[in-house]
Amino acid sequence: MRPVCVVGLGLIGGSVLRAAARAGRDVFGASDVAVADPRVEETVAAALERAAREDALVVIAVPLPAVDEVLRLVATHAPSCLLTDVVSVKEPVAEAVARRLPDARYAGGHPMAGRSASGWDAGSADLFDGAAWVVATEEDTSPEAWREAVSLALDCGAQVVPTTMREHDAAVARISHLPHVLSAVLAATGAEGGSLALSLAAGSFTDGTRVMGTRPELVLAMCEGNRAALLDAVDEALGRLGAARGSLASTGGLAATIRAGHEGRQALEDLRTAGSEEIPIDLTDPEAFETLRDLGTAGGRVLRLDGDTAVGALPA
Amino acid sequence: MRPVCVVGLGLIGGSVLRAAARAGRDVFGASDVAVADPRVEETVAAALERAAREDALVVIAVPLPAVDEVLRLVATHAPSCLLTDVVSVKEPVAEAVARRLPDARYAGGHPMAGRSASGWDAGSADLFDGAAWVVATEEDTSPEAWREAVSLALDCGAQVVPTTMREHDAAVARISHLPHVLSAVLAATGAEGGSLALSLAAGSFTDGTRVMGTRPELVLAMCEGNRAALLDAVDEALGRLGAARGSLASTGGLAATIRAGHEGRQALEDLRTAGSEEIPIDLTDPEAFETLRDLGTAGGRVLRLDGDTAVGALPA
Repeated sequence: MRPVCVVGLGLIGGSVLRAAARAGRDVFGASDVAVADPRVEETVAAALERAAREDALVVIAVPLPAVDEVLRLVATHAPSCLLTDVVSVKEPVAEAVARRLPDARYAGGHPMAGRSASGWDAGSADLFDGAAWVVATEEDTSPEAWREAVSLALDCGAQVVPTTMREHDAAVARISHLPHVLSAVLAATGAEGGSLALSLAAGSFTDGTRVMGTRPELVLAMCEGNRAALLDAVDEALGRLGAARGSLASTGGLAATIRAGHEGRQALEDLRTAGSEEIPIDLTDPEAFETLRDLGTAGGRVLRLDGDTAVGALPA
Repeated sequence: MRPVCVVGLGLIGGSVLRAAARAGRDVFGASDVAVADPRVEETVAAALERAAREDALVVIAVPLPAVDEVLRLVATHAPSCLLTDVVSVKEPVAEAVARRLPDARYAGGHPMAGRSASGWDAGSADLFDGAAWVVATEEDTSPEAWREAVSLALDCGAQVVPTTMREHDAAVARISHLPHVLSAVLAATGAEGGSLALSLAAGSFTDGTRVMGTRPELVLAMCEGNRAALLDAVDEALGRLGAARGSLASTGGLAATIRAGHEGRQALEDLRTAGSEEIPIDLTDPEAFETLRDLGTAGGRVLRLDGDTAVGALPA
């Protein structure tokens, strides 16, 4: 098993390090805190030099605004290592990689797990158990980097969702970044009601605002980094909320809004409780990546690698 | 301890019955399912006649659209019983009481507890433990009904928040009904992303859409019943979401939105973890209700009744 070098040891990076170690991998890494600080830069550089010596997989696990700076160090100290990342948007990271390391063997990734606490201490080896972990699966994705990123995700206990970076960014805008924006709107509107309103808050408000317990800088880095796709999702939400407002004002009814919401939630529960059918995908097939993307589009996941075969599970 | 007659034995009514029984009260009740059905009407009428014989406290625990029909039966079979309710809005119930039972000794209530499952089977005796339970505290609220409603809430393990019906309705629009509307918008927008998006959904989407697991009829009865106050809250949310959209489109930044959300959530956590100072409120004081409302406005609660004294807790 290839060693793993994680740059950025916050909640996600710290959990990748622990989970990969749990799987028996050699792991090392460096925190990216204040990478502009020469002493920190030195630590990151040393980790990357070790990665180059040991031919490790380099995992970038820093918030988007710090990615470019880390890539600069990768280009200097470990330019030929296989490369992946666990950043919450994919197209902007891929663009930065293309600028800094045009020849990189790179496959971007994104584990769909988190909690509102942040930092190394909040991480754990089991954070990714059973979670979805996107691995970018484009026609021009390096097959070697793809395999390494998939292996790492599976070793960390996750299941791999293969898709394009564009589809990933659009999907997470809907199911991760929009929830944060709506949570912010809800928390602020609730707090505007003062202590009385907050004193009456029960499950719906507590659940709906939970993610606002996260450090604002982290939420901002994530949401602002996916600006274009998030704008589309916010526009759709504005349209739906405006329609609810109009209907409530004119007829007093909210049935269309609430029923659509109920069906959406039901679709989530149906997908989660669906049985699944295992399908083998031959990775030596020239159309393997297309088959893998179709699996992802259908809500399927890769469960394991078995030699040259990826074993997928498709919701039944 | 006064016996308790609960009309409506769903999640909330069924839990009130169990919690009051746990406190050692004599309890009985009737389900309101299809009250227009003569057989059901007979059961409700029989329970109310028993309430009249035993001088029980009558608790209306049906969704708002069924309240008027139940009040008609109360007016016929138990017109002089002390009366409260546990319906999620207060002004519309009070208006119905004033129409049907102008001389009622009535104090409206609303326990702030719930879960997405509904019906008798979903209820439990401990549903209200530690929860806030609003009891309407207006100048013209019947003091006897107020005491009985407060006693019931305390017996059920809750803490009482005294406030006006109008302030209650405005507050729950913000922290209960708006969360349901935003949850519906989120669930529908997420599901629009298809199986890929739902397959990637993690905590933020799961938490943010949880309440959409509730039966749509119950959500509709609750939200539509608080139309005027909910419109104000939805308008505020639309303004905030529109501002986020504008900022994201123009500068790419969401700092104002996310920071306001973080502060709102922090205010909730601060209130929940604040120490508290006990203050005795003399219920024979002519200004007792005003003092009680001030307690509620400040996020305080009544913890117990001690003869003619209500012992309040004010966040320190």
